[in-house]
Amino acid sequence: MNYGDIYVVGIGPGDESQLTPAALKAIEYCDVVVGYKTYLDLIDYLLCDKTIVASSMRKERERCSQALEYALEGENVALISGGDPGIYGMAGLMLETVEQGGCDINVRIVPGITAANAAAALLGAPLMNDFAVISLSDLMTPWETIERRVRLAAEGDFVIALYNPASTKRRWQIETVRHIVMQYRTGDTPVGIVRNAVRQEQTVTITNLEEMLKYSIDMASVVIVGNSATYVRNGYMITPRGYHI
Amino acid sequence: MNYGDIYVVGIGPGDESQLTPAALKAIEYCDVVVGYKTYLDLIDYLLCDKTIVASSMRKERERCSQALEYALEGENVALISGGDPGIYGMAGLMLETVEQGGCDINVRIVPGITAANAAAALLGAPLMNDFAVISLSDLMTPWETIERRVRLAAEGDFVIALYNPASTKRRWQIETVRHIVMQYRTGDTPVGIVRNAVRQEQTVTITNLEEMLKYSIDMASVVIVGNSATYVRNGYMITPRGYHI
Ligand SMILES: C[S@@+](CC[C@H](N)C(=O)[O-])C[C@H]1O[C@@H](n2cnc3c(N)ncnc32)[C@H](O)[C@@H]1O
Ligand SMILES: C[S@@+](CC[C@H](N)C(=O)[O-])C[C@H]1O[C@@H](n2cnc3c(N)ncnc32)[C@H](O)[C@@H]1O
Repeated sequence: MNYGDIYVVGIGPGDESQLTPAALKAIEYCDVVVGYKTYLDLIDYLLCDKTIVASSMRKERERCSQALEYALEGENVALISGGDPGIYGMAGLMLETVEQGGCDINVRIVPGITAANAAAALLGAPLMNDFAVISLSDLMTPWETIERRVRLAAEGDFVIALYNPASTKRRWQIETVRHIVMQYRTGDTPVGIVRNAVRQEQTVTITNLEEMLKYSIDMASVVIVGNSATYVRNGYMITPRGYHI
Repeated sequence: MNYGDIYVVGIGPGDESQLTPAALKAIEYCDVVVGYKTYLDLIDYLLCDKTIVASSMRKERERCSQALEYALEGENVALISGGDPGIYGMAGLMLETVEQGGCDINVRIVPGITAANAAAALLGAPLMNDFAVISLSDLMTPWETIERRVRLAAEGDFVIALYNPASTKRRWQIETVRHIVMQYRTGDTPVGIVRNAVRQEQTVTITNLEEMLKYSIDMASVVIVGNSATYVRNGYMITPRGYHI
């Protein structure tokens, strides 16, 4: 029997206007669609006539095993990831699962617009100079490593994009990050907070290091901390590319 | 008279399969399309019936002024950027130009798949943990700043995505970067080099810090240097998300 292929598909931040034709085609091509329920809901208009395997949060490993099983049975499988599958998404775990299964399955990664890029576009142009992308989730990376990276990024005057910045139960991380960055940048350094980018209930906030904790920051938010040259003008957050014009 | 709007549109790495519907719609909506000739060639199938303003490389400022002039005359203008306009693209300069013109023009940024994400998808999953994005072009940022950032990113065990890594005339920068990273990572650290991602003449190379300079690295390449946990298996470059499974 022939094995099926696995496509790890990034659907972008949420709206179909930011889902690429390549992603659309991969989903259309597959018989089975596996994913976290919230993401599948965002693309339900694509899913009729498909075998749907929806799972709850934090079941990443299970999802990969399910995708592999279907592929071994000869089905083409789309494993759905929010944003870009290669950025804190499903690409790595899927490749690792196939590798450990020791099976000769084709895995293709279909990139998507990641949260930082979608958020940056809504804020103006905060990522125009060198930047660091850091996840504040310490489920998979020790907190000391994360903290160290924040410190080095702050020291290097990188713009900093924070994924998984906080949840209802997890708030001290973003507070600590702010505290660290404040040792390197002034309180008026611009900070952008984008919740639910390109989704219903989108909110876009431009604030600064001093004030940022007054705003709601949750799991559906990405936070972009400007570098020493970032400024706000006419409601846009802008990091100059280089020397000021 | 009413002013036109300006859309700064990211067309992704090259192929129309990675151009979002939002980008397509913005281009279709506009009367005037301004951009670097190479990028306009990639989307020539969209450009009939448009006023085209094509320019050569390094004319970024001129392009922004031209876009502004057309908008002031009431035309809707699409300013085309490769990849994502917010990452070493045209978004910042366009916003700065409008701000300095002091005119009340609407500018909207339409995000695109940026080179690092397109390259990562072709390599496997190298960006699955925290990463830094650094441009090696010292036209706009002093080289000392760039070098300092490379050092701090290496020290923080960030995966490092390098834009503008080299050109025919400019090769010492990538050599210096390799030298710096070698002080923090072993020679067998995986390095991915993707040239012309999703374009004609695409090449995808997986090598390591020791060997990387043996391969062609040019202006159309993005280089991704793994962190201490990145490994290569079955032709994929993978950075584990966290602890190994
Ligand atoms: C597990 S990560 C997945 C990231 C995803 N693969 C991507 O490339 O955008 C989840 C985090 O991504 C960010 N995120 C994802 N989608 C978002 C959106 N539409 N608006 C704001 N942040 C988002 C948030 O920081 C969230 O906590
Ligand atoms: C001035 S920057 C523009 C980046 C663009 N705005 C983006 O988001 O991809 C040009 C650099 O982007 C990278 N790049 C752009 N398109 C690429 C492609 N298709 N393949 C590989 N690298 C690319 C190269 O490093 C190149 O030197």
